[in-house]
Amino acid sequence: MANSYDTGRLNLPFVGISTFGKRPYVEDWSKIDADVAVMGAPFDFGTQFRAGARFGPRSVREASTLFSFGHAGAYDHEDDCTYLPSSVRIVDIGDADIIHTDTARSHANIKTGVQAMLAAGALPVVIGGDHSVNIPCIEAFEGQGDIHILQIDAHLDFVDERHGVRVGHGSPMRRAAEKPWVKGLTQVGIRNVSSTAREGYEAARAMGSDILSVRQMRELGAQGVIARIPKGARVYVTLDIDGFCPSIAPGTGTPSHGGFLYYEVLEMLQEVAKNHEVVGMDLVEVAPDYDPTQSTSILAAQILLNFLGFIFHARAGQ
Amino acid sequence: MANSYDTGRLNLPFVGISTFGKRPYVEDWSKIDADVAVMGAPFDFGTQFRAGARFGPRSVREASTLFSFGHAGAYDHEDDCTYLPSSVRIVDIGDADIIHTDTARSHANIKTGVQAMLAAGALPVVIGGDHSVNIPCIEAFEGQGDIHILQIDAHLDFVDERHGVRVGHGSPMRRAAEKPWVKGLTQVGIRNVSSTAREGYEAARAMGSDILSVRQMRELGAQGVIARIPKGARVYVTLDIDGFCPSIAPGTGTPSHGGFLYYEVLEMLQEVAKNHEVVGMDLVEVAPDYDPTQSTSILAAQILLNFLGFIFHARAGQ
Amino acid sequence: MANSYDTGRLNLPFVGISTFGKRPYVEDWSKIDADVAVMGAPFDFGTQFRAGARFGPRSVREASTLFSFGHAGAYDHEDDCTYLPSSVRIVDIGDADIIHTDTARSHANIKTGVQAMLAAGALPVVIGGDHSVNIPCIEAFEGQGDIHILQIDAHLDFVDERHGVRVGHGSPMRRAAEKPWVKGLTQVGIRNVSSTAREGYEAARAMGSDILSVRQMRELGAQGVIARIPKGARVYVTLDIDGFCPSIAPGTGTPSHGGFLYYEVLEMLQEVAKNHEVVGMDLVEVAPDYDPTQSTSILAAQILLNFLGFIFHARAGQ
Amino acid sequence: MANSYDTGRLNLPFVGISTFGKRPYVEDWSKIDADVAVMGAPFDFGTQFRAGARFGPRSVREASTLFSFGHAGAYDHEDDCTYLPSSVRIVDIGDADIIHTDTARSHANIKTGVQAMLAAGALPVVIGGDHSVNIPCIEAFEGQGDIHILQIDAHLDFVDERHGVRVGHGSPMRRAAEKPWVKGLTQVGIRNVSSTAREGYEAARAMGSDILSVRQMRELGAQGVIARIPKGARVYVTLDIDGFCPSIAPGTGTPSHGGFLYYEVLEMLQEVAKNHEVVGMDLVEVAPDYDPTQSTSILAAQILLNFLGFIFHARAGQ
Amino acid sequence: MANSYDTGRLNLPFVGISTFGKRPYVEDWSKIDADVAVMGAPFDFGTQFRAGARFGPRSVREASTLFSFGHAGAYDHEDDCTYLPSSVRIVDIGDADIIHTDTARSHANIKTGVQAMLAAGALPVVIGGDHSVNIPCIEAFEGQGDIHILQIDAHLDFVDERHGVRVGHGSPMRRAAEKPWVKGLTQVGIRNVSSTAREGYEAARAMGSDILSVRQMRELGAQGVIARIPKGARVYVTLDIDGFCPSIAPGTGTPSHGGFLYYEVLEMLQEVAKNHEVVGMDLVEVAPDYDPTQSTSILAAQILLNFLGFIFHARAGQ
Amino acid sequence: MANSYDTGRLNLPFVGISTFGKRPYVEDWSKIDADVAVMGAPFDFGTQFRAGARFGPRSVREASTLFSFGHAGAYDHEDDCTYLPSSVRIVDIGDADIIHTDTARSHANIKTGVQAMLAAGALPVVIGGDHSVNIPCIEAFEGQGDIHILQIDAHLDFVDERHGVRVGHGSPMRRAAEKPWVKGLTQVGIRNVSSTAREGYEAARAMGSDILSVRQMRELGAQGVIARIPKGARVYVTLDIDGFCPSIAPGTGTPSHGGFLYYEVLEMLQEVAKNHEVVGMDLVEVAPDYDPTQSTSILAAQILLNFLGFIFHARAGQ
Repeated sequence: MANSYDTGRLNLPFVGISTFGKRPYVEDWSKIDADVAVMGAPFDFGTQFRAGARFGPRSVREASTLFSFGHAGAYDHEDDCTYLPSSVRIVDIGDADIIHTDTARSHANIKTGVQAMLAAGALPVVIGGDHSVNIPCIEAFEGQGDIHILQIDAHLDFVDERHGVRVGHGSPMRRAAEKPWVKGLTQVGIRNVSSTAREGYEAARAMGSDILSVRQMRELGAQGVIARIPKGARVYVTLDIDGFCPSIAPGTGTPSHGGFLYYEVLEMLQEVAKNHEVVGMDLVEVAPDYDPTQSTSILAAQILLNFLGFIFHARAGQ
Repeated sequence: MANSYDTGRLNLPFVGISTFGKRPYVEDWSKIDADVAVMGAPFDFGTQFRAGARFGPRSVREASTLFSFGHAGAYDHEDDCTYLPSSVRIVDIGDADIIHTDTARSHANIKTGVQAMLAAGALPVVIGGDHSVNIPCIEAFEGQGDIHILQIDAHLDFVDERHGVRVGHGSPMRRAAEKPWVKGLTQVGIRNVSSTAREGYEAARAMGSDILSVRQMRELGAQGVIARIPKGARVYVTLDIDGFCPSIAPGTGTPSHGGFLYYEVLEMLQEVAKNHEVVGMDLVEVAPDYDPTQSTSILAAQILLNFLGFIFHARAGQ
Repeated sequence: MANSYDTGRLNLPFVGISTFGKRPYVEDWSKIDADVAVMGAPFDFGTQFRAGARFGPRSVREASTLFSFGHAGAYDHEDDCTYLPSSVRIVDIGDADIIHTDTARSHANIKTGVQAMLAAGALPVVIGGDHSVNIPCIEAFEGQGDIHILQIDAHLDFVDERHGVRVGHGSPMRRAAEKPWVKGLTQVGIRNVSSTAREGYEAARAMGSDILSVRQMRELGAQGVIARIPKGARVYVTLDIDGFCPSIAPGTGTPSHGGFLYYEVLEMLQEVAKNHEVVGMDLVEVAPDYDPTQSTSILAAQILLNFLGFIFHARAGQ
Repeated sequence: MANSYDTGRLNLPFVGISTFGKRPYVEDWSKIDADVAVMGAPFDFGTQFRAGARFGPRSVREASTLFSFGHAGAYDHEDDCTYLPSSVRIVDIGDADIIHTDTARSHANIKTGVQAMLAAGALPVVIGGDHSVNIPCIEAFEGQGDIHILQIDAHLDFVDERHGVRVGHGSPMRRAAEKPWVKGLTQVGIRNVSSTAREGYEAARAMGSDILSVRQMRELGAQGVIARIPKGARVYVTLDIDGFCPSIAPGTGTPSHGGFLYYEVLEMLQEVAKNHEVVGMDLVEVAPDYDPTQSTSILAAQILLNFLGFIFHARAGQ
Repeated sequence: MANSYDTGRLNLPFVGISTFGKRPYVEDWSKIDADVAVMGAPFDFGTQFRAGARFGPRSVREASTLFSFGHAGAYDHEDDCTYLPSSVRIVDIGDADIIHTDTARSHANIKTGVQAMLAAGALPVVIGGDHSVNIPCIEAFEGQGDIHILQIDAHLDFVDERHGVRVGHGSPMRRAAEKPWVKGLTQVGIRNVSSTAREGYEAARAMGSDILSVRQMRELGAQGVIARIPKGARVYVTLDIDGFCPSIAPGTGTPSHGGFLYYEVLEMLQEVAKNHEVVGMDLVEVAPDYDPTQSTSILAAQILLNFLGFIFHARAGQ
Repeated sequence: MANSYDTGRLNLPFVGISTFGKRPYVEDWSKIDADVAVMGAPFDFGTQFRAGARFGPRSVREASTLFSFGHAGAYDHEDDCTYLPSSVRIVDIGDADIIHTDTARSHANIKTGVQAMLAAGALPVVIGGDHSVNIPCIEAFEGQGDIHILQIDAHLDFVDERHGVRVGHGSPMRRAAEKPWVKGLTQVGIRNVSSTAREGYEAARAMGSDILSVRQMRELGAQGVIARIPKGARVYVTLDIDGFCPSIAPGTGTPSHGGFLYYEVLEMLQEVAKNHEVVGMDLVEVAPDYDPTQSTSILAAQILLNFLGFIFHARAGQ
């Protein structure tokens, strides 16, 4: 298994077109042939404070090049393991088409993209965009079997309806919980005042949600949290970047202090990858222009690439 | 006529709550009693590149405090004139209520605000938000007599419909031109490729629009441009901050090089104030977080305050 | 108890005039009728490195809107408690008048404001400005009974006099300790080299101060620290934002690495609210223009609103 | 000729992978089949003040999406002309491979790319990178016939050798002038102290260079400047972004006040396109991270797309 | 006359300690032996909007290194002249000592520094700091013969007293006009509302000031403006960076649109250097942290170095 | 032992020329007479992602002034110790001369500087620049006795050669390990994918390296880590700022999440100072322009000054 720079270009991180991980771009969604397909969902009309998540996909792609050194996989000395060997085929299928002023059609286009990835048998990875993009993602799983949702987030996102709004970024988990194919939710990192009021928490619990704060997660540990997900559940992970502490993820619309540090999330993801089939994921709310250091986008890319590594390492081991 | 600091506080620009020009805040829209009413319209789902104009109203208000020194009016040594004496009553009525994900209801709320200002007999001043907020502003003028629109902008904004979108920030002038009470448009500063294609220009001209580029305006001069507006026309001014050169207005969604410098716009506004009844205005597309220097917001505040000075100086002189 | 959006506007965080928490603005200081009054003290001539804290009040007000969703209080799922129900009346009284070049008169105006809040029976909350604004705050407590000061800060601020300076931001705790009505100080978070030299530490200890570093606080825990405050003491809290780690509070004049993370401070404040009467507070040294992410201002707003919630929850429970 | 959004996606500027102008990416340099080929040259070890031009290609590509609305060409109402109709085939061939620490090999890789574009019969467009990348560009023209160089720049870039350095960003025009196939240089915008000392100016003039300052260009006008280029000359254009005024191009390594405004350069480029065969171009020294407003990158993209429009309009008219 | 890099180090702009122009640092003010002495006056408590000018000296020094290439003087091809040959001895004497909270003592220390430079026979160059630092500069000229002041500024700075403030940055020209040794003022660039009200303009004219706006200067031309200064007058130049357009000088406390472009100021300075003895200068109000592009500081350094070149070229020619 | 402000200037941090710690500048490297000599190495052509470390020395010097209050040493209340009393003589010798485009000569100049410091008997402290500057630093120790290297870093930096590159910032530890006088390496903080692939780790271990991740260090504790360094070893410390968490050190070229917090590194350095002779150090990869908050530079200065304090406290105690 050769490193790509042995035979071709050195291809330093700052060189070249920014697809996700510098992987091939597949423009025709009927021709996806890969283990993983990555799609952007640059929609941010669902936000309630700062916008800008529309540039999330571009910035995460750009940041992902930092982790592209042309090696034949990503060696991790702690695990003594090379993740994402060349046998794991990842493609970037570009972005869902977004229609300004029109939430319904934009969401529909996102759903179409996820359906295409699922139809191709690829693991769908969606980069938001605000958290409302999770709504069409979950809708696309209709007919794909039961799923459990693991949400890492500062906010519960369980608003039912307010002033007629049902599909804003404060509602995705409510919309998910309503779906027959969503059998449960584990919501981790939830803290502070947000668009969800007390009644939202009560509704979530009534609909079977397991709500954990950052401090509660710290007491349980990563293993303890993941152990609360039903055995055998097929898990969809939705990762709102504001689940992290603003110290490492300030580039987001509604930052909330007191969030997770890096290893806390990494270890939950490694644990869920070991113990469950992961059937899809989205990473949302990166608003890169609020972080001139680019740390937020780098975090998003680093987490996604590591999580994909864990998933396919677990699959390979089975 | 006393300067306010003679009897009260020094009230330096950096001190105090940021209403527009530190003028009184009127929360109850049924109780507007003023010559000028200023309202924010923090809507930006109509944008096609960078969002962030939702923070336009806050930042323009904050910047406007720089021009608030507690003097009894604003003395201009070039004109040897004190503009905006205390007899001109300006109020800030806060923002129109914006509903995330919902363009129609957000626009409706903006229209309600402009109607309230008009009903009170105040000159309506709307701070955007993206240029789509002009659509409900113009709708609110139904039944208020005929108007002519003076648009200062980089873009023609004359898209009819595309992918079902009719009320995005690329369409306000088309929507305006369709109104029976809009008798003509003067569109100045138009340049470069934008969301309006050739057919939009043809339609605009067919619907009676007078289109001028920056270089064409420079040849005509401010007086020459304003002389093309029909005599006696009651004029509504819509000022897209991207009509200016990005050198002084980088904080906007779709910057376009080659725009106007400060005095070019100032002099057109002074000229229109001298020669026409100005019946309303909006200033749109300030996206402050893209300009860490705050120059864009300062420009917006400076232009608005000067224009108001010119208008009421002209009214006083009649 | 209704959420405000049920009957009126949705009033998203990015909409509306930025008073603290979008609470009513009371311009006439003789008419304060509230449980809590918030005043800005935008003074920063007392700084020894970066200025800019004059924009602290504006930025903290703006950030505080992020936590204003129109709910009937702030539900905290960890405590299963709704803080700050509508029965807690909070007002914003604007800023103390600051006189450039003149420290003495600026400080005097701050003192006047705090006296007005105290006279009205409101809990005074002052947003700086640099830490020297604490000096007039403490002076305003003359005749208000004995107090104990809990300071959370990177720096001891115990300089007596240097080059004639006695009221800079390096001296407030020394000035406080000299007051007969200040019975003791607990100074937490103190670390690194600063304007206070060894003799300042010796003087502080001699004057009855209890000095704790970040690491010492971590060993004691929040409860352990607060237990060192004399039982029954009425506590005034002065919170210098640089007590926090620069990772979450870079927007300050003299950052010092190794500071507190979010929950450490939150838990000390919750503990002091439970065990003591809190009689006033200031939050100082937010210099927002050094933090383009706005994390610092959001932190300040989040901490203040939570602390107020704890205080009135404790009062309600008594 | 259909607009692409009529049949497919709306494809707003903020949507999709960032190739230049969202044009097709051709990875295999032996398969370039286009009228124009765009290549990045992200090399910046040749800089003498601020680095960062290595991110020029990425940022110019990203900015170029602002001008991609899916129209069937770019309509210019001043010229009443639709530039860049779909018949002009533009491709993006990615970046030359850059080898950190190694100037010689990095330059060699750039030369290889330009040779590939020339071999394919495409007009080569190179986006730097610092101005030293012009050296391999000009070397690639060996055997391609005689050329004249039009340089728009603040600096003469005519250093022969200093401390052994012959291929830094202060020397490209000297290196070009030495080539037998370079028959002359027109150097416009030159001003202020720089790495070229008096002897460099003398050498340039001796080697046949025509040196013009910004003020001299203003006196001559765009037509007057271009008229000084020998009739019939085949022209290669090298555009250093610091030729522009820092007001619109602050994102560069060595800004120099007093530079060109937008139309001055645009009109020189339009004039040269009308009167000469343009055989290649590079645009260098965009260091995007020094311009948080992105104005510099937008300027670069806007100028390149307009210039390409002028060139192919002229070719079509012949 | 050798270039320094011929015999020693290449000494690129980004290398080395940042004194002004990389000139020698003279710590002992009794040992100044130079033609020009440069001193920082990092005082900003006199500001009425944004602070931060305290970092003006550091940033202008840092920016000045961009113009330091080790050449034996600065060759200007437009004038065909090498300015600032090594025979012109320039030293940096560091900063005046600033005392936080104490305007009077800080100003006194600035005065001491200027007196030291004058006593040594060096041309004093003071880098602010806010414009109030001009007050001690002018005071230091007592007993040095009559002077005329040429002020380039957006603001008249002619406030007599307000709320007891007489030495803030709104008053320096009033304070100067009161001095017996100041025989007249030429105030150029004045525009827009500021801290000076109508009565200030009337007082200025009564005290012999010649007030010109930007547009008036443009009509007169640089020569026309300088021709209004009495023949034979010894001129002190005070240059407020906000006299420039915010497009090139956004890094300042109180930006005002409509200011000067680069050559307008440069040519006035060249003209005054040709026609008058220049006896001192200050450049104030650079607040670098409001300009992340560093353009403002680069402008300040570029203007100062060119002006010094003009002055000593004129002296040499006499 | 007097504080300097008792007899002279107050000399606040924002005042004065920025040498390291405001210590004396020694231009002539043959006249270094000090305990510690600090040199900048502003070289960054060895970087593989973001450049900009060339401004590391300037920014760390500037940040170091924050810790310069003129006290007679730095009092630490936790240790009850005054570090860096005036008896410890520190000088700043400026920067090594960097030659753009030329890695070999730039590195050679750095080596010359370190040799000069060693020859003078001063402890050499080098501020980078990218990590490749460590290569000439270690080369300068030839003939100085055996050393052990303690590296704190996110990356192993153990690339042997790729595309001919042997002296980029991915290779310094490999180059060091090859030196006969380097007897061992302790590499702490290593994590995530980087330019070193699996074979680099294997080679490092084979060459005697002890590799520890952040989480492994946390398990061992600072004492546990330092205990793994052979007793009696003379230690050279190379500190890559990206060893820290991006939350406090975002201003670097290749940030890597999951890094060290402040006290973790501080305590390792305090421990190594107590137990070993420290013979030299470099601190590299500060790219200040990627951190507009300046936190990264402040961290670098704070760590360096504390480490020097620990070293000389240990020496004094022996």
